[in-house]
Amino acid sequence: MSIHVFSTRIQVPDTSPLQAHFLSPSAPIPGILFIHGWGGDQRFDLKRAQTLAGLGCLCLTFDLTGHHEHEAERDQVTRAQNLRDACLAYDKLISHPLVDPQSIAVVGHSYGAYLATLLSQLRDIRWLSLLAPALYQDDEWLKPKDQLNRTLLATYRQQAHTKEDNQALLAGSLFKGDVLLLEAEHDPYIPKQTILNYRNAFTEAKSMTHRIIYEADHALTQKTAQYNYSTLLYRWAQEMITGARTGLLLT
Amino acid sequence: MSIHVFSTRIQVPDTSPLQAHFLSPSAPIPGILFIHGWGGDQRFDLKRAQTLAGLGCLCLTFDLTGHHEHEAERDQVTRAQNLRDACLAYDKLISHPLVDPQSIAVVGHSYGAYLATLLSQLRDIRWLSLLAPALYQDDEWLKPKDQLNRTLLATYRQQAHTKEDNQALLAGSLFKGDVLLLEAEHDPYIPKQTILNYRNAFTEAKSMTHRIIYEADHALTQKTAQYNYSTLLYRWAQEMITGARTGLLLT
Repeated sequence: MSIHVFSTRIQVPDTSPLQAHFLSPSAPIPGILFIHGWGGDQRFDLKRAQTLAGLGCLCLTFDLTGHHEHEAERDQVTRAQNLRDACLAYDKLISHPLVDPQSIAVVGHSYGAYLATLLSQLRDIRWLSLLAPALYQDDEWLKPKDQLNRTLLATYRQQAHTKEDNQALLAGSLFKGDVLLLEAEHDPYIPKQTILNYRNAFTEAKSMTHRIIYEADHALTQKTAQYNYSTLLYRWAQEMITGARTGLLLT
Repeated sequence: MSIHVFSTRIQVPDTSPLQAHFLSPSAPIPGILFIHGWGGDQRFDLKRAQTLAGLGCLCLTFDLTGHHEHEAERDQVTRAQNLRDACLAYDKLISHPLVDPQSIAVVGHSYGAYLATLLSQLRDIRWLSLLAPALYQDDEWLKPKDQLNRTLLATYRQQAHTKEDNQALLAGSLFKGDVLLLEAEHDPYIPKQTILNYRNAFTEAKSMTHRIIYEADHALTQKTAQYNYSTLLYRWAQEMITGARTGLLLT
């Protein structure tokens, strides 16, 4: 992934041609996969995907099985199915001729951030952005996700967990790229302990950027929360993704 | 100039395909022409051109007639010749198939900034970045630039001038795009009055961003001055050029 530089000449009547250089953004370019949260859909990310495309990345958004048009099937869909969706979406993204398969970012929200973390163990990911990442116990993996006991889940998320007892945290502990970890200040579903479980898990990460989005709920209902999320994501992407391309920090 | 959005499907075994969207930076892209100062050459701008290419722009740098390899001819070259060079370089840039001719920025330093301003009257320019722009009286246009009387020139630059008596300021007064005007704090060649003559001239500009580069001399000899120049230029380019592409302010 680099800039294409080639020298050229500009013809001038009656005198020597001028020496010149064209510098162009060259393909392949970084690819960014967006994974929405449980009960959400790809519309959550479209605006941000558009902005990141404007920064020279190729973005892919998609609806998980059992969502949006297929909401009726939601009560049957399992985590295993949705992780398979994420794998297939990833494969679709890297099959695009513009994309550099060595430069893939995955941006997930809540359940999508959980899937993104699991995906990092199955596919090659360089940058991982996790907004209010959810955490689930490993067992009942093939049970419909909607049928997981919510009371047990709430208790589970209040507890300290490590790579020893959680597959997503294990995946995190193996991840060697850059991590953006975003916490919603007023999040009734993802307590601080869950955020810290994730943060502590990424011991091999090249960088860890943990930020709180103030006055935000889990779904970023407020416009300001959405705006602040976008700003944090763009800044990080500029530093990590376009920064990797230009070799310069642009802040 | 926009983002290319197209919907697609991800095939999933035994169930409905997933709805998805690719969002890609689409050609044409903005073009940026760099014009170096008197006695300089394109190497002054190569690093910045590379960075701006990384932000998704196609950049062109070049050596003016009488410079670099053709330094021997410098004492004979006229402003008319160098302005013609700038026109030809502009034409080379917009002839590139990737470039959107409606989205051209010109980045000039000193004499190159003077030429860039004059060029804006002859060619379609949307963004104009002027670093320590030099100013010259209109007469003796066809006299070798090197033979202009330096004492008279120094006096001329200390005086208030307007579009009524200066062709570059007239070009400025007609310019309808965005202007970045950068002043070197310790500039023995370009006094404050010359900067103000430029600033006052751009009455029709869509925006004016005037900044001082502190502790900088005219040629930005110090590394810090170069770094600060680059930072100001990138921020402005992000707001104006990639901002125009994404429709969002990325600060």
